[in-house]
Amino acid sequence: MSERAELAHNAAGRSVPTMVNGRPQIPFLGVGKYQPRGRKATTPIRSNKDYPDNGDKRVPDLETALRKCGLRDGMVISSHHHLRDGDTVALMALEAAAKIGVKDLLWFPSASFPSQKGAIELMEKGIVHHIEGSMNGPLGDYCTQGKMRGMGVLRSHGGRYQAIQDGEVHIDIAVIAAPTADQFGNADGSHGKSACGSLGFAFADSSFADHVIVVTDNLVSFPCVPWQIQGNNVDYVVEVDSIGDPAKIVSGTTQITRSPDRLRIAELVAKFLRASGIMKNGFSFQAGAGGIALAFVQYLKQMMKEDQVKARFVRGGSTKVLVELLQEGLTDYILDGQTFDLEGVKSMANDPRHIATSPFTSYNYHGKGNFASLVDAVVLGATEVDVHFNANVVTHSDGRLLHGIGGWQNCLFSGCSILAVPSFRDRIPVIVDQVTTLTGPGEMIDVVVTERGIAINPRRQDLLDAVKDSKLPIRPIQDIKSEVENICGGKPARPKLGDRPCAVVKWVDGTVLDTIWQVG
Amino acid sequence: MSERAELAHNAAGRSVPTMVNGRPQIPFLGVGKYQPRGRKATTPIRSNKDYPDNGDKRVPDLETALRKCGLRDGMVISSHHHLRDGDTVALMALEAAAKIGVKDLLWFPSASFPSQKGAIELMEKGIVHHIEGSMNGPLGDYCTQGKMRGMGVLRSHGGRYQAIQDGEVHIDIAVIAAPTADQFGNADGSHGKSACGSLGFAFADSSFADHVIVVTDNLVSFPCVPWQIQGNNVDYVVEVDSIGDPAKIVSGTTQITRSPDRLRIAELVAKFLRASGIMKNGFSFQAGAGGIALAFVQYLKQMMKEDQVKARFVRGGSTKVLVELLQEGLTDYILDGQTFDLEGVKSMANDPRHIATSPFTSYNYHGKGNFASLVDAVVLGATEVDVHFNANVVTHSDGRLLHGIGGWQNCLFSGCSILAVPSFRDRIPVIVDQVTTLTGPGEMIDVVVTERGIAINPRRQDLLDAVKDSKLPIRPIQDIKSEVENICGGKPARPKLGDRPCAVVKWVDGTVLDTIWQVG
Repeated sequence: MSERAELAHNAAGRSVPTMVNGRPQIPFLGVGKYQPRGRKATTPIRSNKDYPDNGDKRVPDLETALRKCGLRDGMVISSHHHLRDGDTVALMALEAAAKIGVKDLLWFPSASFPSQKGAIELMEKGIVHHIEGSMNGPLGDYCTQGKMRGMGVLRSHGGRYQAIQDGEVHIDIAVIAAPTADQFGNADGSHGKSACGSLGFAFADSSFADHVIVVTDNLVSFPCVPWQIQGNNVDYVVEVDSIGDPAKIVSGTTQITRSPDRLRIAELVAKFLRASGIMKNGFSFQAGAGGIALAFVQYLKQMMKEDQVKARFVRGGSTKVLVELLQEGLTDYILDGQTFDLEGVKSMANDPRHIATSPFTSYNYHGKGNFASLVDAVVLGATEVDVHFNANVVTHSDGRLLHGIGGWQNCLFSGCSILAVPSFRDRIPVIVDQVTTLTGPGEMIDVVVTERGIAINPRRQDLLDAVKDSKLPIRPIQDIKSEVENICGGKPARPKLGDRPCAVVKWVDGTVLDTIWQVG
Repeated sequence: MSERAELAHNAAGRSVPTMVNGRPQIPFLGVGKYQPRGRKATTPIRSNKDYPDNGDKRVPDLETALRKCGLRDGMVISSHHHLRDGDTVALMALEAAAKIGVKDLLWFPSASFPSQKGAIELMEKGIVHHIEGSMNGPLGDYCTQGKMRGMGVLRSHGGRYQAIQDGEVHIDIAVIAAPTADQFGNADGSHGKSACGSLGFAFADSSFADHVIVVTDNLVSFPCVPWQIQGNNVDYVVEVDSIGDPAKIVSGTTQITRSPDRLRIAELVAKFLRASGIMKNGFSFQAGAGGIALAFVQYLKQMMKEDQVKARFVRGGSTKVLVELLQEGLTDYILDGQTFDLEGVKSMANDPRHIATSPFTSYNYHGKGNFASLVDAVVLGATEVDVHFNANVVTHSDGRLLHGIGGWQNCLFSGCSILAVPSFRDRIPVIVDQVTTLTGPGEMIDVVVTERGIAINPRRQDLLDAVKDSKLPIRPIQDIKSEVENICGGKPARPKLGDRPCAVVKWVDGTVLDTIWQVG
């Protein structure tokens, strides 16, 4: 890394660089303390006269498209993780750029996955300078090994929208993988052989990038309906044989947990929602695609039936279990940011009550409100949580960066944010004195549910009161921590971290919440 | 009018002011000749912290909402004509502004209607300075009487989007009448007691205005689906008893013509599409809600059935006749900018193949293409057309301003633009030596169909060739004109126009195409 990082202490007491990749940073000021100024980013005014009258924006290949977009050294290229670990388009674009011979690109994916580890070679060769975006697995590991030339910047889904909207990241060329598209560039994720559901993560890119390329393996006659991505924002359309591996597009990991401990956690979460009165007619909730979250929905569904309660809406990441809620009349709507299994994809394609959302509608903190704070309860995971309810989702306790933030930070604005976590993993306690990397400030986390009991944040006296007459195992978080330390033989070892920042974690408002340090 | 208008000759040979309402203007340079520069307009960055966590943006009334938006003298207030002559919200907003005591507002409706003639009193009192937007009937008349303090600016639907996008008009406060909305500000036009179909005309305003107020008479629980207007762009929500008069929201004038001459015109247009080969599998067309256009669709439908031809899409303004095409499987989609009757409203509400569009998708000339040029043929009206195919849709031959441009200019970019007009009205010839007001340059108009024959623009040799072996009455436009002058007893009287510009007609790229002069 060429720049010498000056460090500052932020409002969370974390030491963070004041300059990241040549841009001055604002250290985290506290939740709701930063006042943005100025106006949103914007794009050049175009003219129809420079686009084909018949609307046919096709060019032969990605290389041609990138050349026509004026690709040159140092540009920012964005891609999206709708196809998750099955995506082949992002690497295809970077390799086309390599062929053109440019250097020092900033790759700005909405998230990157293990199958994209070929990007390491492109970084080694100097074609990609660094990655800003979630780095799941090997790319994150590469980052915390200190091998990336620039600093990683981790943002939530909403934070990514915010950064683009506010002009913190200017995308030169957005490359959007589209399971269906027409020659004008209208694109849809919910149909086609590579269907993945919503293309919402690319909405910001399509709106704010100077140039937009749609890559599809299923070209249809205009109009491609629904146009989740609007052709009016698209410059070029490229047809390819395949945009990804369908087997990996839809995650195969969305299985309900069979672990008795984790089933107990799931059941406790559901019982908590019922006992606290959150589960009532017209309520709403969000749960992810992890094994605990899926099991939680099954338990809650049973209780909703017993109590004859119907939700107004549920938020996806959608899965079969959410789709069943919709089909059985237990919710009016699914508002869905991404689909995690084929049942979710099919439902979005066919059921008008299963609605695609985007980080703009759901998560952008620099808007006129968003959907996240309208959700009554959200069930999330974490790698670590401390006694002040601060939580970590990006690094493991050894300091290695292995996960992205996703919508996790944004969801904390829900009426009741619940971390559903085992109290230890591989004999390493999950409840700690201090989290390795602060991803969510404790004041935003209301409840921690483990198999050993439920800890309610003392700030939420209302929740403590609501469940005080229940039979739920409500316990101070310190109690659970002590018990777990006894089981595991003490506190977890502190990670061996260097003094060199490899990446930063942004808060939803673009300020710097924490630093991820080189490991070892 | 305080400013002294300097005049310039533009590329169409028209004399146009170089300054309008204090802003310098670019005279029309020719179709496709103006190169826009710079970047699109943008809005201030907001923060969720300044909006309610529970998403409830309701305030008691419009006056409160306007005060909270910081209403002050000289601001630009926009409104929309989705409810057409039945709208009561636009005047309600202006009257609330009057109550607050501000002056010199610029009222920027997407169109204004006779029922809004109360705006004249607000202009007389100084509350409204002038109107920029279509002025149908009395308000247009008031303008050409020279009584408005500022100059009228007439834009097409696409031109209005372009002007907002390009920053030529900065909207301070947008007031959006919504047949359905939720407390977060998501709004939909296709449901509710005042349902009107699409809210697409307000899309630009919701995206680019500093402040956005949604006014509804049908509040539903979040989420209001579909969110044609996104609550993420909305500041305040106001509930009222009624947003309009349902009897006038849906125009009662959408009746198929019974005039034998007009039926003949309609039939000739349909025959032309068939003979020219435009009517073929996968084709597309647009026709409005006038009596001739409706009859044309009926004739065309019959021919499509006979020839077993199916359209890929038809563009609305939708009506019963288009909905029948969809329901009978004669088109895959209706892409609809506004619904003109209850059957259209119902279809949009219930049929996913009947899709709401906006001036952004359909008509904006300063984008990366739009839908209008993808339409194979469009059937339009005109008040006058000259021997060079230049046409007028805004003034009558006496010079009075009585109509807006609507999407008319934008539709001229279709593959084949057809004016379907009677050769004379009230014994005044429609085909003239020179149009009173140039609204569409002759090079953009391909065919003029009258009851006396079909004139094809000599620029379209391809169309002349395509129909040369047909039995259609193809005639030079001069021939038809001479015949009509014989019938009517000569050319129409030239209007008595003053030398004072009252309004200008913008071309789709924001340049000034023509001037509307004070009458008498």
